[in-house]
Amino acid sequence: MTTLTVALGERAYPIHIGAGLLADPILYCPHLIGTQVMIVTNETVAPLYLEQLSQALTGYQVREVILPDGEQYKTLEVWNRIFDALLDARFGRNCTLIALGGGVIGDMAGFAAACYQRGVAFIQVPTTLLAQVDSSVGGKTGVNHASGKNMIGAFYQPRAVIADTTTLNTLPQRELSAGLAEVIKYGFIRDADFLDWLEAQLPALLARDPDALAHAIQRSCEIKAEIVAADELESGQRALLNFGHTFGHAIETGAGYGNWLHGEAVGAGMCMAADLSARFGWLSAADLARVRRLVASAGLPTEPPADLSVERFLELMAVDKKVLNGTLRLVLLRQLGEATVTGNIDPGLLQATLRR
Amino acid sequence: MTTLTVALGERAYPIHIGAGLLADPILYCPHLIGTQVMIVTNETVAPLYLEQLSQALTGYQVREVILPDGEQYKTLEVWNRIFDALLDARFGRNCTLIALGGGVIGDMAGFAAACYQRGVAFIQVPTTLLAQVDSSVGGKTGVNHASGKNMIGAFYQPRAVIADTTTLNTLPQRELSAGLAEVIKYGFIRDADFLDWLEAQLPALLARDPDALAHAIQRSCEIKAEIVAADELESGQRALLNFGHTFGHAIETGAGYGNWLHGEAVGAGMCMAADLSARFGWLSAADLARVRRLVASAGLPTEPPADLSVERFLELMAVDKKVLNGTLRLVLLRQLGEATVTGNIDPGLLQATLRR
Repeated sequence: MTTLTVALGERAYPIHIGAGLLADPILYCPHLIGTQVMIVTNETVAPLYLEQLSQALTGYQVREVILPDGEQYKTLEVWNRIFDALLDARFGRNCTLIALGGGVIGDMAGFAAACYQRGVAFIQVPTTLLAQVDSSVGGKTGVNHASGKNMIGAFYQPRAVIADTTTLNTLPQRELSAGLAEVIKYGFIRDADFLDWLEAQLPALLARDPDALAHAIQRSCEIKAEIVAADELESGQRALLNFGHTFGHAIETGAGYGNWLHGEAVGAGMCMAADLSARFGWLSAADLARVRRLVASAGLPTEPPADLSVERFLELMAVDKKVLNGTLRLVLLRQLGEATVTGNIDPGLLQATLRR
Repeated sequence: MTTLTVALGERAYPIHIGAGLLADPILYCPHLIGTQVMIVTNETVAPLYLEQLSQALTGYQVREVILPDGEQYKTLEVWNRIFDALLDARFGRNCTLIALGGGVIGDMAGFAAACYQRGVAFIQVPTTLLAQVDSSVGGKTGVNHASGKNMIGAFYQPRAVIADTTTLNTLPQRELSAGLAEVIKYGFIRDADFLDWLEAQLPALLARDPDALAHAIQRSCEIKAEIVAADELESGQRALLNFGHTFGHAIETGAGYGNWLHGEAVGAGMCMAADLSARFGWLSAADLARVRRLVASAGLPTEPPADLSVERFLELMAVDKKVLNGTLRLVLLRQLGEATVTGNIDPGLLQATLRR
């Protein structure tokens, strides 16, 4: 087991990474407040891991709420079912919510923990690669609004993250690839050496080699934790983590929530952001080809859906959080391994990227 | 104009109290972030004050959302209309929400500000006495759940509170009385001299004498600000502010949201808490009579609804946040002007108070 710490002062918390951690009571006990524990999970994950987790919490008053599975259920309405369950169980301020599942479950359970009686304890047990490397680090929680992703939410840090790599064995291949999109992103924005390592290890990662996965998760969490610790509330460099995401969110919304996985949209979005970076003269044609090759090797799309028009794309990007207020700001690559936020975007270059 | 400061470090903020402040641009400008301003108000307040406030914000991009009036609309569903309006207007992270109205509007707008894109700027313009002396100070925001009041929410501080005493001229007498419940509460829990002053000044307050009102608001905000500054997240003495509220919440829920005003329920709740304090031997019969007389003089009920049975009362109190986790904790009076939180409640004494 490897343990990292996200250095956020009094909100600092550990991320434990390793095989078979899910059922280890020792990892939970120090972070449980009181005796009331509500496990928030979904219909897909519950049959696989709920019993293991519940048994690890012997001696606690454990209840669970099982939500439908999918990004399309990340709504205020479904979120409210967590409160129904908490109030039905008469859980008080000294309860702990445990998110058992992927990013959607983590986002909704974390946001519920932030808001139940104005804040209760929260532990993340991410069971997808995407959640292990991305959504479980950094405290972003929330739900979608019909007009935009993650528009309603809170910054709320978990007390601990328990990333059990064995849970990835039950992950569909498509979701494994989607998780790799974020792993690759960390290389693009921050660590050229990690990119080299990824190019060599992608076959091992896709074959779910446990050591390769553990290293990829660890390095991803390290980079994200470093960036988040420097900018918890996203006023500056944290925006770099959105590389590929402004294009990606437009793709997700344009294709209809749930049709493209978040990681797939980010894969294509990163290729688009790299294309625009090349048009800025920052990436060479060889760099751009390398970006596309790496994204494709991870089993991800490198192009947006063909039926998404340039006009619709611009409209969707205009609603994105990072674009609102009239100024389009995008994360581009200065070079492979170094990202920058750019507000001064030539509309002609952007159109050229979208038209491609 | 009097200005107090709520001392919360980097979240410190001013409370301006006085006549005719609502339309003074100077009070808003230092606290507005960006140019986008969303005024959140309700159907009762909008015709009275929305235009004045909008005109004070010339030069800003001002939009408004007008919600239905009443505690029964303090729901996730109605709350979501604020996000509809914000996204419809394409407002970004650099927008400011202004709550123009009473406690319900302040709670919902503040909670929306806490959650819109994970947090935007927020200004309170309370137009009821209750909101001016209570809900606009302390950062408690939220909505109700079908199973309990304020179960979903956040601690979120405004950047400024602008309490215009002239708005109280349009307040129905019943709501003026409801606001006085909280004013009196500050005397009971913290300041025996203020109680003496209140006994003398109640007729002037009920006649809306502007100087008397301004002093009552100022002293109330001072006491609340002092308590909140010492305990922002309610881990200790902030609970004293709940004097009369555990009984009061049970009355509000038992009578059906919206049938009893919050202040009315708190008025009766304070009399019940004082009754129990007397049974503990802390208040004399004369003290208890004085509490009831003061509450009655403010035009408030001193008894709960006759049709609320002891059993139903206990059941409702068991759902209250301050009771959950199995332990009933109540705020009682050691003497007039000094409150204490008590967890060790003799069920016989409580039953006697409820049965009375």
